Amino acid sequence: MATVFGGIEGGGTHSKAVLVSGDGKVLAETEGLSTNHWLVGVDKSVEVINDMVQRAKVKAGLDPNTPLFSLGMCLSGGEQKAAIDELIALMKELFPSLSKHYFITNDTIGAIATASDRGGVVLISGTGSNCKLVNPDGSQIGCGGWGHMMGDEGSAFWTAHLAVKTVFDAKDNLAAPPHDVTHVKKAMEEYFQVSDLMGMLPHLYRNFQKSHFAGFCKKLAEGAVAGDALCQYVFTQAGRVLAKHVEAVLPAAQEPLLSGDCGLPILCVGSVWKSWELLMPGLAEVLEKVASSDKFKGRFHGYSLLILQQSSALGGASLGAKSLGATITMDYAANTKVFYKHTFSSSE
Amino acid sequence: MATVFGGIEGGGTHSKAVLVSGDGKVLAETEGLSTNHWLVGVDKSVEVINDMVQRAKVKAGLDPNTPLFSLGMCLSGGEQKAAIDELIALMKELFPSLSKHYFITNDTIGAIATASDRGGVVLISGTGSNCKLVNPDGSQIGCGGWGHMMGDEGSAFWTAHLAVKTVFDAKDNLAAPPHDVTHVKKAMEEYFQVSDLMGMLPHLYRNFQKSHFAGFCKKLAEGAVAGDALCQYVFTQAGRVLAKHVEAVLPAAQEPLLSGDCGLPILCVGSVWKSWELLMPGLAEVLEKVASSDKFKGRFHGYSLLILQQSSALGGASLGAKSLGATITMDYAANTKVFYKHTFSSSE
Repeated sequence: MATVFGGIEGGGTHSKAVLVSGDGKVLAETEGLSTNHWLVGVDKSVEVINDMVQRAKVKAGLDPNTPLFSLGMCLSGGEQKAAIDELIALMKELFPSLSKHYFITNDTIGAIATASDRGGVVLISGTGSNCKLVNPDGSQIGCGGWGHMMGDEGSAFWTAHLAVKTVFDAKDNLAAPPHDVTHVKKAMEEYFQVSDLMGMLPHLYRNFQKSHFAGFCKKLAEGAVAGDALCQYVFTQAGRVLAKHVEAVLPAAQEPLLSGDCGLPILCVGSVWKSWELLMPGLAEVLEKVASSDKFKGRFHGYSLLILQQSSALGGASLGAKSLGATITMDYAANTKVFYKHTFSSSE
Repeated sequence: MATVFGGIEGGGTHSKAVLVSGDGKVLAETEGLSTNHWLVGVDKSVEVINDMVQRAKVKAGLDPNTPLFSLGMCLSGGEQKAAIDELIALMKELFPSLSKHYFITNDTIGAIATASDRGGVVLISGTGSNCKLVNPDGSQIGCGGWGHMMGDEGSAFWTAHLAVKTVFDAKDNLAAPPHDVTHVKKAMEEYFQVSDLMGMLPHLYRNFQKSHFAGFCKKLAEGAVAGDALCQYVFTQAGRVLAKHVEAVLPAAQEPLLSGDCGLPILCVGSVWKSWELLMPGLAEVLEKVASSDKFKGRFHGYSLLILQQSSALGGASLGAKSLGATITMDYAANTKVFYKHTFSSSE
């Protein structure tokens, strides 16, 4: 068969696979569950990846016993060298007909590779969160991506946790809640099917599932839209801390990233961005302050928020090909859409 | 044999068992690892308990096949009704010769039952943290004790986590550290045997062991004593938030708890209290503010910090006996020692 490249977008809750030819034509797409090896374990992770790709081969009318030329995987949690090597070794051993070559990077890099070959900022807020700035010359700097035990600020998990923690602290009289907790407490009891705080313990320990806990964030978004002040508050906080990730990487930005007509391009990836209007008050407030700070005054004129129109599995396929000197033709303009644009008045 | 009562003190890292006769004489004591079922699972928890008690029977010259009259267990994490029932059912099934009757409460209640029959405040800072106020009439109110996923503020785990998070945030440029991170970063790399932040991920996820992570707190205490400002800072923060637990339960205190010569008795339990001098700046500062607040002015005159001279397994044995209408003679005065006492000048 003609050279077929594979790509994987691996999240904390859902994953996607894509098969693509060298001219950029998508041959097949499939979906699967989490492939974050920190969350589901290495064995489960490679099993889900293999299953998605083999299903995609069949869907594309390809022979599942013929390996792909390359499989480029953009995985949340895919950054630690030893863990990456282990994943690849295991795939080679267990699934010899999956792919000839493998390439793993993390989900931020996969997203940017789908959107542009001139860099930008990726701001992920899905089950977890992460931020990466890639310069036009390829140099990169990151902030976050350490998972729920050491960060994930502004993610669905973090937002859900903040809401639940506010209920616990109010009940304990440890901290006064910023707003009445009645609605969030009721929503928590419904979502987790518990009748008191004690009932939350199995959800936090014995039966902990990050993606299920993070799923409570969707209920909070509904509460916020319906007007609950605490629900709105946790999203404002999420927006604030997501903006702080941008602030953290901004000093490394090369001039072309900041001087374009649309200002700094911020590629927004992950399901929490479906609630971008809820994130905006906090996000805009922090970026406004950054723009007027001594450090960035006159340099940071504005920003655009973009979403992908294609799975970042496509960027993964492209990076996988590139790592072997091959090329997939990418239509970057078609792969993204600007959904919000802001120019700071102080810079006009 | 004469009636023998058993008691268990179950922590997140270590546990103790005691066998005692009705006149309060300790017949044998043994030790074991964690019995926190949220951390090690129910199966492991009951196995450790059985093993400790059976060894204690042998040590006391008793027949291990003769059940104790009662086994009173004070377990960190022992509060949720369904989980307690499950633990007891499993012990009855697996170990019929362990004990005739069982009683489970959490570690705070076990500690207070060792120290007094007139109540007080227990402030636990071990692997995890917890606070409980027990009134002279037996009524009680708590703050905390939800574990590392939803609290544990001021515990060894929390303090270790705060220090590590400060290093991560400094590296990420997400938050400026309050003090130079050089010493803590080096100590972290040594303790966890890692060469970079990536190396920490297995310690946080795949191979996470709360008690091992919490053990880093001891290295921070050494750093604080040696003069490192960030090490000192994290203990000050721990002291602050521990005091906030006391503030949270204080409104429920009945007059006799506050009006004694020694002020409010605060029973300090857990290994972090070995570093009480490091906790004091933050603890004293917050309690001073509480005492001068409108809410407590003229009511909260001072406080004493006490430590147990006996394992709270003894209190567990006593509570287990009491739950069946039996009595163990307790020498409360011998069971505690005041190690710090403060009277607020504003109340003099």
